[in-house]
Amino acid sequence: MTEPLHIVVIDPDKERAFLIVDGLRETMDYKISVIGETLGLARKLRDLEPDIILIDLEDPSRDSFEQVITALGPSERPVAMFVDQTDDKMMRAAIDAGVSAYVVNGLRKDRIKPVLETAIARFHSFGRMKAELEATKTALAERKTIDRAKGLLMKARGLSEEEAYAVLRKTAMDQGRRVSEVADGLVTAAGLLL
Amino acid sequence: MTEPLHIVVIDPDKERAFLIVDGLRETMDYKISVIGETLGLARKLRDLEPDIILIDLEDPSRDSFEQVITALGPSERPVAMFVDQTDDKMMRAAIDAGVSAYVVNGLRKDRIKPVLETAIARFHSFGRMKAELEATKTALAERKTIDRAKGLLMKARGLSEEEAYAVLRKTAMDQGRRVSEVADGLVTAAGLLL
Repeated sequence: MTEPLHIVVIDPDKERAFLIVDGLRETMDYKISVIGETLGLARKLRDLEPDIILIDLEDPSRDSFEQVITALGPSERPVAMFVDQTDDKMMRAAIDAGVSAYVVNGLRKDRIKPVLETAIARFHSFGRMKAELEATKTALAERKTIDRAKGLLMKARGLSEEEAYAVLRKTAMDQGRRVSEVADGLVTAAGLLL
Repeated sequence: MTEPLHIVVIDPDKERAFLIVDGLRETMDYKISVIGETLGLARKLRDLEPDIILIDLEDPSRDSFEQVITALGPSERPVAMFVDQTDDKMMRAAIDAGVSAYVVNGLRKDRIKPVLETAIARFHSFGRMKAELEATKTALAERKTIDRAKGLLMKARGLSEEEAYAVLRKTAMDQGRRVSEVADGLVTAAGLLL
C-alpha cells in the first residue's frame, strides 16, 4: 500500500478550516495537517513536507497575502488557494508564484475535491513544460561550453574541430564522465592557467 | 478607446447561457457571441476570432467533450470551462489542451468574472513560459545549424573555425540576413550540391 497524500491546510479561520478538513475526509484517505497561524509559515512547511498545500484566506490584507505567497517558495508541489476577496495584483502574484488553482469566492465543501484534483493535474501539466524548458536550457548551455572547450583545444594544440571534439570525447569516456563535464572542467582550468 | 474584448460563450443550454451573458454584462463592456450548437465548432471559432472563450458543458458525454476540446485547437487565447460533472480523464485532457480555468460544479453568476480573470492571468503566465521555451529551442536549433555550416566551410575551403564563422557573418551582413539564416541556406545547398 502507498502512503496517503499529506495535505497541509492553511487557514487562519477555525470554522472554515474545519469545513475543509471535513470535505477532505469525505473524499479520500489523506493525512491532514492544519496551520492556523501563518507566522513562520515557511519553516512550518519545511518541517511538514506536504505533498499538497491548500490555502484558505477569506479576505486577506495585501501584507498577509504576500507573506503567504513568499513562504510557499519555489513551486515543488500543487497549491490550491481559496480567497473570498481578491484584486488583480494578488491574483497575478499567486498564479506567477505557481498556485495551481486560484478560486475566488468559491469555497464549498463539495468543491474541495475537484479543486484539489484540478490543482494536481495543472501542476503536473505545468511541470512537464518546466522540465522541457530546463532540459533545453541545459542542452544549450552544454553546447556553448563544449564549443568553448573545443576552441581552447584547437588554439592550444593546433587541432581541427573534429580532432578537438575527439579529444574531449575520449577523455570523457576514459573518466566515465559526460563530454559537457569534461568541457566545463577544461574551460574552468583554462581560466585559471592561461 | 480600445475595442471591447470579444468573448465567445459556448453553451448548449439556453438558460445557462443567458445566466452567463447576464453575469458578463454586469461586470465589463464585452462583445459577446453565443454558440449553442457545437457542431462545426472549429469553423465557427475561426470565423468569430474571439479574444476569450467561455465554455459551459454541464454534464458532457465523453464524445461531445472531446469534440469541443479538439475544436479549440492550439491554445492562442484564454479558455475558461465550466462543467458540473467530470472525470479525471476529461479534466486532464482539458488542462493539457490549454484550458486556463477548469471549474467543476461552480457555475454561479457572481463567479463568472473572477474565473474569467483568473483564466486570463493564467494564460499570460503560461504564455511567458511557452515563449521562453520556444526561444530556447530556437537558439539551440540555430546553434546546431551554424555549427554544421561552419564545419562545411572548414572542410570545403580549409578554413579555421574563426574564419568559417567570419565568412558566415560577413555574408549575413552583406545580405541583411541573420547568421542562422545564411547557415541554414548553406546546409541546404550543401545537401543538394555535394
